[in-house]
Amino acid sequence: MYTLYSMQRSGNSYKVRLALAQLGIPFRLVEIDILKGESRTPEFLAKNPHGQVPLLEAAPGRYLAESNAILWHLVSRTPLRPEHRIDRAEALQWMFFEQHSIEPNIGAAYFWLALVKGGRELQQHALEDWMEEGYRSLAVMENHLKHHRYFVGDHYSVADIALYAYAHLAHTCDYDLTTFPEIRAWLERVAAQPGYVSMDWQPENVVAAE
Amino acid sequence: MYTLYSMQRSGNSYKVRLALAQLGIPFRLVEIDILKGESRTPEFLAKNPHGQVPLLEAAPGRYLAESNAILWHLVSRTPLRPEHRIDRAEALQWMFFEQHSIEPNIGAAYFWLALVKGGRELQQHALEDWMEEGYRSLAVMENHLKHHRYFVGDHYSVADIALYAYAHLAHTCDYDLTTFPEIRAWLERVAAQPGYVSMDWQPENVVAAE
Repeated sequence: MYTLYSMQRSGNSYKVRLALAQLGIPFRLVEIDILKGESRTPEFLAKNPHGQVPLLEAAPGRYLAESNAILWHLVSRTPLRPEHRIDRAEALQWMFFEQHSIEPNIGAAYFWLALVKGGRELQQHALEDWMEEGYRSLAVMENHLKHHRYFVGDHYSVADIALYAYAHLAHTCDYDLTTFPEIRAWLERVAAQPGYVSMDWQPENVVAAE
Repeated sequence: MYTLYSMQRSGNSYKVRLALAQLGIPFRLVEIDILKGESRTPEFLAKNPHGQVPLLEAAPGRYLAESNAILWHLVSRTPLRPEHRIDRAEALQWMFFEQHSIEPNIGAAYFWLALVKGGRELQQHALEDWMEEGYRSLAVMENHLKHHRYFVGDHYSVADIALYAYAHLAHTCDYDLTTFPEIRAWLERVAAQPGYVSMDWQPENVVAAE
């Protein structure tokens, strides 16, 4: 059985929980509170020298980091991975876009504004850039969704899961989605997918960090 | 034949040229000078609304963006893609790391310090973060290379191509690799690979931007 090292309130960790839930794959979850330093213990760093969650024990002793690489691994041979080769390339295109243009801005704003007490004051110098770049990236998504129901081949796929995690948190960290009606409608379409679970959902098999 | 929209001095574009050269795949190259606004023309934005290079016309009328998604598409069914499923997942892990932790720091420093006149003064406020985060990411690479000759399965792969592009430019934009001997040795191993071409290399089939 897979073991997932995850933080409940991490958007990157949520992506993996959502995919596992939608695929009906049972897994053991270890909750890692990065705000309490649990991703920086010698035990955790031995598994992931980069000290980040999510982390998937994909095979005994083989640890896989980077949320979107974990997603891609999990959806292999499932309906969440697009069928055609060029569509698969487009899914990865959106997933690299997500890690390059969405997560570093909306993810950073979410972390410091919604999770860290006093984070707004600490990161005041960076906030303006996060907002500007975040809105620019949301506009790329909005434009795509004007002509498509989902990000690849007009079917729900792993690319939607990757983009959903932080897009659905944007309103909790100062982004105003009023002028992004297509994104708001797409967020609702994702939440209506079979097997969808919210960020609060917990699997049955939860154990404490070592 | 593939058409690649590329900028000669872009590290992300170089990744794709290097992979195409090493795989012996002929391609038509369209040089796009983003410093002259050539990625913001209506013609280019119709192909890539995000306005970035590299961009690959992967099939007639199907344009693929994001350098690492293009790489993954090109190496499918070639020796540059790791053979085993879990190794492929690790390759993608390093490629997401590259776009999240290397490119936004070393890539940004390279762009503003090495390509844009007066860029240092314009970006003085961001430079300290790029340096700090860039060195932290280089340390992750250095630690890995203490125990491995390459990034995945101890064989040269697409993950090395992705990481090489900006790592080999680090010295041109203020990073000092003196204390990273493993990275320096790996850079030499990559440059000694069959079919390696430098960033200056041009394919035979070059056409001007439309």
